[in-house]
Amino acid sequence: MRSATPLSFHVLTQRPGWTYADYAKEFTAEFYNPGQWAELFQASGAKYVVQVTKHHEGFTSWPSARSFNWNAKDIGPNRDLVGELADAIRTRTDLHFGVYHSLFEWFNPVYLQDKAANFTTQYFVSSKTMPELYELVNRYKPDVLWSDGDGQAQDTYWNSTNFLAWLYNESPVKDSVVVNDRWGTNCNCKHGGFLTCTDRYNPKKLQKRKFENAMTIQQGSWGFNREAPLSRFLSIETLIETLVQTVSCGGNILVNVGPTKEGVITPIYEERLRQMGSWLKVNGEAIYKSVPWTHQNDTVNPSIWYTTTKASPTTWQSTGQVGITVAIPDISFADMPCKWAWVFKLTNVK
Amino acid sequence: MRSATPLSFHVLTQRPGWTYADYAKEFTAEFYNPGQWAELFQASGAKYVVQVTKHHEGFTSWPSARSFNWNAKDIGPNRDLVGELADAIRTRTDLHFGVYHSLFEWFNPVYLQDKAANFTTQYFVSSKTMPELYELVNRYKPDVLWSDGDGQAQDTYWNSTNFLAWLYNESPVKDSVVVNDRWGTNCNCKHGGFLTCTDRYNPKKLQKRKFENAMTIQQGSWGFNREAPLSRFLSIETLIETLVQTVSCGGNILVNVGPTKEGVITPIYEERLRQMGSWLKVNGEAIYKSVPWTHQNDTVNPSIWYTTTKASPTTWQSTGQVGITVAIPDISFADMPCKWAWVFKLTNVK
Amino acid sequence: MRSATPLSFHVLTQRPGWTYADYAKEFTAEFYNPGQWAELFQASGAKYVVQVTKHHEGFTSWPSARSFNWNAKDIGPNRDLVGELADAIRTRTDLHFGVYHSLFEWFNPVYLQDKAANFTTQYFVSSKTMPELYELVNRYKPDVLWSDGDGQAQDTYWNSTNFLAWLYNESPVKDSVVVNDRWGTNCNCKHGGFLTCTDRYNPKKLQKRKFENAMTIQQGSWGFNREAPLSRFLSIETLIETLVQTVSCGGNILVNVGPTKEGVITPIYEERLRQMGSWLKVNGEAIYKSVPWTHQNDTVNPSIWYTTTKASPTTWQSTGQVGITVAIPDISFADMPCKWAWVFKLTNVK
Amino acid sequence: MRSATPLSFHVLTQRPGWTYADYAKEFTAEFYNPGQWAELFQASGAKYVVQVTKHHEGFTSWPSARSFNWNAKDIGPNRDLVGELADAIRTRTDLHFGVYHSLFEWFNPVYLQDKAANFTTQYFVSSKTMPELYELVNRYKPDVLWSDGDGQAQDTYWNSTNFLAWLYNESPVKDSVVVNDRWGTNCNCKHGGFLTCTDRYNPKKLQKRKFENAMTIQQGSWGFNREAPLSRFLSIETLIETLVQTVSCGGNILVNVGPTKEGVITPIYEERLRQMGSWLKVNGEAIYKSVPWTHQNDTVNPSIWYTTTKASPTTWQSTGQVGITVAIPDISFADMPCKWAWVFKLTNVK
Repeated sequence: MRSATPLSFHVLTQRPGWTYADYAKEFTAEFYNPGQWAELFQASGAKYVVQVTKHHEGFTSWPSARSFNWNAKDIGPNRDLVGELADAIRTRTDLHFGVYHSLFEWFNPVYLQDKAANFTTQYFVSSKTMPELYELVNRYKPDVLWSDGDGQAQDTYWNSTNFLAWLYNESPVKDSVVVNDRWGTNCNCKHGGFLTCTDRYNPKKLQKRKFENAMTIQQGSWGFNREAPLSRFLSIETLIETLVQTVSCGGNILVNVGPTKEGVITPIYEERLRQMGSWLKVNGEAIYKSVPWTHQNDTVNPSIWYTTTKASPTTWQSTGQVGITVAIPDISFADMPCKWAWVFKLTNVK
Repeated sequence: MRSATPLSFHVLTQRPGWTYADYAKEFTAEFYNPGQWAELFQASGAKYVVQVTKHHEGFTSWPSARSFNWNAKDIGPNRDLVGELADAIRTRTDLHFGVYHSLFEWFNPVYLQDKAANFTTQYFVSSKTMPELYELVNRYKPDVLWSDGDGQAQDTYWNSTNFLAWLYNESPVKDSVVVNDRWGTNCNCKHGGFLTCTDRYNPKKLQKRKFENAMTIQQGSWGFNREAPLSRFLSIETLIETLVQTVSCGGNILVNVGPTKEGVITPIYEERLRQMGSWLKVNGEAIYKSVPWTHQNDTVNPSIWYTTTKASPTTWQSTGQVGITVAIPDISFADMPCKWAWVFKLTNVK
Repeated sequence: MRSATPLSFHVLTQRPGWTYADYAKEFTAEFYNPGQWAELFQASGAKYVVQVTKHHEGFTSWPSARSFNWNAKDIGPNRDLVGELADAIRTRTDLHFGVYHSLFEWFNPVYLQDKAANFTTQYFVSSKTMPELYELVNRYKPDVLWSDGDGQAQDTYWNSTNFLAWLYNESPVKDSVVVNDRWGTNCNCKHGGFLTCTDRYNPKKLQKRKFENAMTIQQGSWGFNREAPLSRFLSIETLIETLVQTVSCGGNILVNVGPTKEGVITPIYEERLRQMGSWLKVNGEAIYKSVPWTHQNDTVNPSIWYTTTKASPTTWQSTGQVGITVAIPDISFADMPCKWAWVFKLTNVK
Repeated sequence: MRSATPLSFHVLTQRPGWTYADYAKEFTAEFYNPGQWAELFQASGAKYVVQVTKHHEGFTSWPSARSFNWNAKDIGPNRDLVGELADAIRTRTDLHFGVYHSLFEWFNPVYLQDKAANFTTQYFVSSKTMPELYELVNRYKPDVLWSDGDGQAQDTYWNSTNFLAWLYNESPVKDSVVVNDRWGTNCNCKHGGFLTCTDRYNPKKLQKRKFENAMTIQQGSWGFNREAPLSRFLSIETLIETLVQTVSCGGNILVNVGPTKEGVITPIYEERLRQMGSWLKVNGEAIYKSVPWTHQNDTVNPSIWYTTTKASPTTWQSTGQVGITVAIPDISFADMPCKWAWVFKLTNVK
């Protein structure tokens, strides 16, 4: 969920006389139906969902007190997108509910001020990012907290350890929450809960620690693109192959879906999710509750990958899992990086 | 392409303070790429295309002189949607290009005035519909003219025979054009070129005359619906079965696709067309240049249907053909019947 | 109400990706309050109003059957602007109600087709302009019919004499209606009812026939301009001087007002109308029921102009009168000639 | 510039499916011409201008780092409205330039959180309001700082004295800046620079301290109202009378003007300002450099008010002055209290 070189606000504004924020009004989510989504995610065979609550461009899909008039309740949808999905998932399914949150914001001037000071000031952390994380945990009690903060500053700037200490010792989810590894440039792929390393991490050999392959059904994009042709979408064969490779090597897979600005998961995404669900109905035994076997890949037939069953897993995440992320719908009309609007993650986190 | 009971303008206007015509501005067609469409239609195995140029609500997708400021050049796309596709089809493919045109208009006050006079006046015919048909033929020289005029008035009101006399004897396409049968309430399923009878006409027994099964990939809708789930789209199995039944009984199939208001044929439609193309690549011999055999259906295995090859067909349309129609994208945002924006027909017309 | 060189549609469309007709949706008339307007016109001292029903760009402010989806009922306001004002004027005031109508339309392709044929064909006249005039007279029964057709074709093209014969002999207003002179290039300033000659016609010497000085409060524009500064508006002194000069020479004055796209007559216009009303309350005796005197202007004090009273005028229009026209609000946002949206004329027609 | 009972966000959102913030995109300021404004303010006879930089609803008309995507650079105008006017005033006129700023924000959730805690927490002060004030002073170096913070909390919550100590001792304007009195519920009408007491404060008797009468040309509204009739605007006679009464009693007058969302000061406002300028050109001697006389009002003719000349005023603000405020244009289309968009103040501050 990274972009090496974020586009400038100037580039994001493609219509003459429009600003980037002018597009927010067109993110209507008028057909957003969390109950329908929950049922689709269940049918996909996923065991949990991680919803994007804020991506690098700063728009929050819940009514954050620290993002006045730049959140889904105040502008655009006029709804709490996170609260509604959390409710639907918990009421209608047995999936775990998690949240994705970007620590940094590409264009936030307070963040840029800290950055210009080589992260010797923490105005952004104290007035924006940390208050948001406390809000998210206290309000939505997520089972998974998927932080996205690498490539910018160390954990000491972010106060990550302070927050994690509170999360594990005092928060309302202290006994159940799972986290990832993107809590500072020095953490990624080393410290934290499950490791995400890079986007689309698929090492194809056994890993020592539980990892997650966060990947997308639409190649190259986490968001919805109005003009994307069929050729940009993974075939069901490629999707299943990726799933199998990942789990066989000790990983979970997190499959990203990008809804439209109207709040719809389009039929091509739905088809892939339902096809994955059909496959898992038959082959789920080799995935859920599985752990890596002595060997991963068949030497004769390289498209065969192995797992073995673990009788009594320590926690729900310790065996093979499949998750779904659904990106925030693009708030603009064109094909831009800032389209993640509601990235959920339906993943295999161990 | 009919609606027994057209919605009133009032019902069509779902946003308070909006009129139906207010939506036209949002029909942008900004991603309309006729070259890409032409290549997709070729890949689908279709042999010709019939584009919707005007549906029952009156909007013309070409710059008709008789529809000032209510056509795709003057409002919305600002392009000649018909001319651009005609060019692309003729330049890039060997498909035949045809046009669909609705004789009547649900809400046009001049038409309603004639109707109120029990069709004893012909103000609408002389000032609107007939001038449009001459424009279409002279400007785009269509191989197929798919008129939609049944269920309203007899051919004497429409002056259909006058027009057809000109079409076959003097028009620039007099030697090549094919027409259908919807030229008046007394013509449908009886007179004209190929017979269309009802929408989705699939008799499943041998017909005496060449007919066409005009059907849709999205069940129940000719237009695009922003919120339609996967379950509303035909599976490829059902689509192929319908194709086979139709051709076996002496018909052609006309497969309808509904693009978005931005001018995009979405991936689920693209997938079905490409799947049909894969099937026709293998099985095309039993379709193209085929005619019905002595028997149509296998008594033991009811899903097997027969055809036989005709060595020298009289015209290109006299054997089995597959066509595509692409509806005009809905000019509104919601789920309404008036969404046909550019119904093209890629069909097996004989 | 003419423009020597109409702007092309291309020039009218100033926003990239917008057509001229795309602006119509923004003409909301949401604050249009005909009752309030009627009372203001009465307070201005005017004796009648001439409303613009269609200007040269073709949009009709009443639901014309011949302008489907390009009229104020079908797109934009969603109201019959003409019918509502006619009612308000007749219910709340003793003013006469009239309509302005442009015979030709700058951009209508059917008109341009006739023009290209040197007006040897009359497709536009028979299918558009004449049916509209009959509609207007039959539906709204105007006291004044202010036709705007000069500078294009002769009356033989327009069939003007046929129409006028019907108007004076058979129409519902045959005994009361007054017309102007713009019924063909050969009529202007010669034939017809009162003469309008050129826009802002103020000859400053006695005229043999009743004429009208159709002028504007905003210099150089009949429409509303969102960015017009105070310097573009006539001072009350200049307005009164023009009124006095006009009436003294045997003319009536028709004062144009341009409302906003929201349907508001802005305070600067209101102020000038009320100031004129205050002056007429005191000096009306020298205007209403007056006719020119032997001399018009004082040789010593050139700003003094004379009239004399006529005891028994033959008709209400035969003496000095003051009228108001209110232009159709601009349907675009920028400063263009096509802004007349509801030109009413409150005039001194004799 | 207060509203006893702010409307709720719900009430502010009058279009179904719209949020309050959705309107911001329509605040285009496309005709905003600060050079033209500066020349108009000079012509009005005003000696300084106070621009609204943020009103109670929180939108900032400069690109505040603490109001990400809720400021005039990020959404709507895409310009720094404050910086541009400051430059124009300083380049083209000899007027003083000042800024208005609301300490509190009706709907900001962080402010409401402090308020719910009876102002025992200061999250809003430290993360929002105080950083903004430092930004404003450092960036625009205002001659007048017009704070609007009364009716909510005491100065101890706002940290006002800390800020004022910095302003007078260390800031770039420490030697020249003038402030008002609205720095906390305990300050208003008692402490600070000039006293504003209530809006439209016109005591009509001699005051012991310099005060300011902040009033509006449109009665009852600081913002622009699209449908306001002439009767809502003060006549020039009333405006001058108010000016004279105010200065005679030792006050300055601050005349508010409300521009449109397109950035235009409409002709009715322009007319009143130019009329005031004409009057001041003749009578300015009795206003500028004047101080109150022994008596204020004439007992025989109550519409005569006295002043006397002060040979050597201590500062530019110590004698009679006229100022202009121009409100932020309404960011909505309807008649609401939140329309202050760019309140400038052209005032008599002593």
